Amino acid sequence: MRFLDAGESHGPGMVTVVEGLPMGLRVRREFIQDELARRRRGYGRGGRMSIERDEVELLSGVRLGRSLGSPIAVLVRNRDFDNWRESMSPEECAFPGGVQPVTLPRPGHADLAGAIKYGDEDVRDILERSSARETVGRVCAGALAKLMLRSVDIEVGSHVLGVGRVRAAERVVGSFTDLEPAEEDPVRCLDSKASEAMREEIDRAREEGDTLGGVVEVLAFGVPCGLGSHVHWDRRLDGRLAGALMSVQSVKGVEVGEGFALSSVRGSE
Amino acid sequence: MRFLDAGESHGPGMVTVVEGLPMGLRVRREFIQDELARRRRGYGRGGRMSIERDEVELLSGVRLGRSLGSPIAVLVRNRDFDNWRESMSPEECAFPGGVQPVTLPRPGHADLAGAIKYGDEDVRDILERSSARETVGRVCAGALAKLMLRSVDIEVGSHVLGVGRVRAAERVVGSFTDLEPAEEDPVRCLDSKASEAMREEIDRAREEGDTLGGVVEVLAFGVPCGLGSHVHWDRRLDGRLAGALMSVQSVKGVEVGEGFALSSVRGSE
Amino acid sequence: MRFLDAGESHGPGMVTVVEGLPMGLRVRREFIQDELARRRRGYGRGGRMSIERDEVELLSGVRLGRSLGSPIAVLVRNRDFDNWRESMSPEECAFPGGVQPVTLPRPGHADLAGAIKYGDEDVRDILERSSARETVGRVCAGALAKLMLRSVDIEVGSHVLGVGRVRAAERVVGSFTDLEPAEEDPVRCLDSKASEAMREEIDRAREEGDTLGGVVEVLAFGVPCGLGSHVHWDRRLDGRLAGALMSVQSVKGVEVGEGFALSSVRGSE
Amino acid sequence: MRFLDAGESHGPGMVTVVEGLPMGLRVRREFIQDELARRRRGYGRGGRMSIERDEVELLSGVRLGRSLGSPIAVLVRNRDFDNWRESMSPEECAFPGGVQPVTLPRPGHADLAGAIKYGDEDVRDILERSSARETVGRVCAGALAKLMLRSVDIEVGSHVLGVGRVRAAERVVGSFTDLEPAEEDPVRCLDSKASEAMREEIDRAREEGDTLGGVVEVLAFGVPCGLGSHVHWDRRLDGRLAGALMSVQSVKGVEVGEGFALSSVRGSE
Repeated sequence: MRFLDAGESHGPGMVTVVEGLPMGLRVRREFIQDELARRRRGYGRGGRMSIERDEVELLSGVRLGRSLGSPIAVLVRNRDFDNWRESMSPEECAFPGGVQPVTLPRPGHADLAGAIKYGDEDVRDILERSSARETVGRVCAGALAKLMLRSVDIEVGSHVLGVGRVRAAERVVGSFTDLEPAEEDPVRCLDSKASEAMREEIDRAREEGDTLGGVVEVLAFGVPCGLGSHVHWDRRLDGRLAGALMSVQSVKGVEVGEGFALSSVRGSE
Repeated sequence: MRFLDAGESHGPGMVTVVEGLPMGLRVRREFIQDELARRRRGYGRGGRMSIERDEVELLSGVRLGRSLGSPIAVLVRNRDFDNWRESMSPEECAFPGGVQPVTLPRPGHADLAGAIKYGDEDVRDILERSSARETVGRVCAGALAKLMLRSVDIEVGSHVLGVGRVRAAERVVGSFTDLEPAEEDPVRCLDSKASEAMREEIDRAREEGDTLGGVVEVLAFGVPCGLGSHVHWDRRLDGRLAGALMSVQSVKGVEVGEGFALSSVRGSE
Repeated sequence: MRFLDAGESHGPGMVTVVEGLPMGLRVRREFIQDELARRRRGYGRGGRMSIERDEVELLSGVRLGRSLGSPIAVLVRNRDFDNWRESMSPEECAFPGGVQPVTLPRPGHADLAGAIKYGDEDVRDILERSSARETVGRVCAGALAKLMLRSVDIEVGSHVLGVGRVRAAERVVGSFTDLEPAEEDPVRCLDSKASEAMREEIDRAREEGDTLGGVVEVLAFGVPCGLGSHVHWDRRLDGRLAGALMSVQSVKGVEVGEGFALSSVRGSE
Repeated sequence: MRFLDAGESHGPGMVTVVEGLPMGLRVRREFIQDELARRRRGYGRGGRMSIERDEVELLSGVRLGRSLGSPIAVLVRNRDFDNWRESMSPEECAFPGGVQPVTLPRPGHADLAGAIKYGDEDVRDILERSSARETVGRVCAGALAKLMLRSVDIEVGSHVLGVGRVRAAERVVGSFTDLEPAEEDPVRCLDSKASEAMREEIDRAREEGDTLGGVVEVLAFGVPCGLGSHVHWDRRLDGRLAGALMSVQSVKGVEVGEGFALSSVRGSE
């Protein structure tokens, strides 16, 4: 299975082509839309998120509700492209004066590095793709992957362990259904007391015009023994998962199992 | 540079995502449309071709007429999808009786092999992707590749050497402009006398409900010495070009230079 | 399954690493050696071939006669490396005067293109890898592939259809065993009369210091319906086989089935 | 640049083939050997390490001290293979009674998962490849990569931040030469006081038959702005580095920059 995704933050739309899914998988447009809605959710998220009611169009690879085995193309149009048509049109600029360039790179993004790399005077040429909206493509591909995994009884879910200085109490998550309460929680935390403290933390940061980090745990259930391979470095599951996760812009660290905590304990512990 | 293309013959549309093009390349939607129009042309082509006025939409990767270096997504909607909505909808079939399956595989296509492979009762699940319309994606990717090659003064063109038993007289094609007359010829042949005979051959075959083979020569001009590589088999130019050409359904043979003719002459000749 | 192969014509040895073979396959060193011996055979082949008694060493991936599922590394030492140690040592040249460069590129090889590409004064830097001995690596990988295919009852074989102007009479090859006589024939031809004429053709050409082309047919038996895929251009079997074959230096044309002959007949024929 | 590596822990040897290095790079066998010696070093390492005086043989891709641009094959023979010939021979077992299988999987390795996956009765079939000795191939490839990076003035180095509960004092590492003292330190730590405590920690754990974790920092100097790419997830530098690091068996967590520490601070901090 491989995919390519495309799309600028304020361009015409986000496109994902997934190649390699088997034939006969049930694929519903609404499921991908639900996953995109999950992506948007989150306590205290900015205004952009609310206008982003992402509507999905399946352009290929699915017929009468089932996958054909051929590449599946998913299109998510940007709803406010009309407001951006002037500066984001694929067509050459037709009006006098041209488009106002963006000259201030955002910190912590690829903007500055990209502008230097390409010798570009308009940072918009970089920031439109280095935007967080880029993850729309991954969510589309991930939704299709989830459908395939579900067909072999594997479920993948997640919950929030920490926001800022607040940490959730440890709890055993033994099955996929144990994660369900997180879907209902405003910050996707299983510990309702911690969830409240997290929201306060978020409110405070927002009032002060600041941002916060956090920690998320991703869990997979029903994974058969021996998935991945020990025979070659680039087929190891740990490495591939870490690489995929770290390629999300906001992710700065990835652990497997106990991860860094193991660095200070003994093997016997 | 890599690409994925997607789309069924009578589905909503054909999508191509090309990743790896440099930044700053001039990209015009109209050029891709012109290339798609060249794909449709051809003396004696069937009725399908005429309704296929392919309109291109650039969904990403191009801003104000120039490539951004990010993936370029090209959408070509199928104009007659409305007539096929019932049997080609991505949504589950809602009406009683369902969709009439296709049970007769076309000879010389992947239809039969695919139906056996997938144990599928409706050959449409296979033929929609094994259709010649699949080449729309390659033409879109090829048009973008041509734009990149042009930016470094490489031109690629072609002309028809034979149709059925008719062969064009040999002639030296020394430059890209030498190929221009082929663009005007109804069968893309540089030899006008042979072109006439080819058309007669086509007319006869069509009257008799038959089909014809042919031979095309593809030429590249301005290619720098040393493109490709001798160091590993899968980087050799000959192999990659042959693999790409042979992956077109109707292509059954590929030669480099004199090709098979060399098999019966001596090295000194 | 993927592989990398390495090695210069007169360097220390040829190495092939094949990754992706399943566990539990019977692998014997002698089988790979037999395949390398087949590569060397051929009526009228040059002196190089006779000193090339290739001995195979399995360095990994095989334990007690069975594959481990891990990468298999095959080493074929160059027997006459000692005679070439001075000019082909990996170590920096230690003796005064240095190594005599090769300044005459062989026609029809990558020598000239490579020397121009790399701005290299010693053509040996190119010709050592663009040599026909490079195919040793492919034969090693191919031998392992054959073992895997045999475990699922697929056999691949070949025979010579033409040498110079001589063509073998057409005959039906209905099974892998039908190819056995070709293994015994000096030019691997199934038509003994044509074989004689081919050898005469070769003798004549050699007397006159000339070379000859030829045509080989490769056949696979037991291939299940639907191998390869119609869903994406780079997964089509025809394209992948053509690409692999055309990457062999001496191959200038590849046909599938009737190939070019089809270009001049009608569909109904 | 791509590579395949092969080799079992007690098999004939470890083989690495690196494809894609440029022509004309200075490559010395001794440099790869030095890197392998660095791999072996480490306070308190087991007995295996001392017999592992790895000797490197360059089998291809390097001529007279310079890379040819062709694949470089590196062979590291296992010095004690003679002692293992009986149970690790690639040849079928010839003596009566056969080879004694290993039936106890090591905890924390791929042994158990592999044995279940393959339905294998002899865990040795798995553990020989899932051994830490597998990193020999990566060190060989890494040494060649270092030579290439050095040719464009990029240096990569590392030092130990923590062993068990001991953490080194924070210090600014402003240049590659600042890392030199770590090369001399028995535990590769820049903080000599912490280094002493780390060694005591190691001694204690060893006496008690226990093991310890640790934290290593890897630093690259001279990296040009814009390496990697923001345009597609699988070309992002962070993701690729994290994936490569996490594919090392003993690595359970990867951070970029401040990593997890950022999860509990505000953006403004």
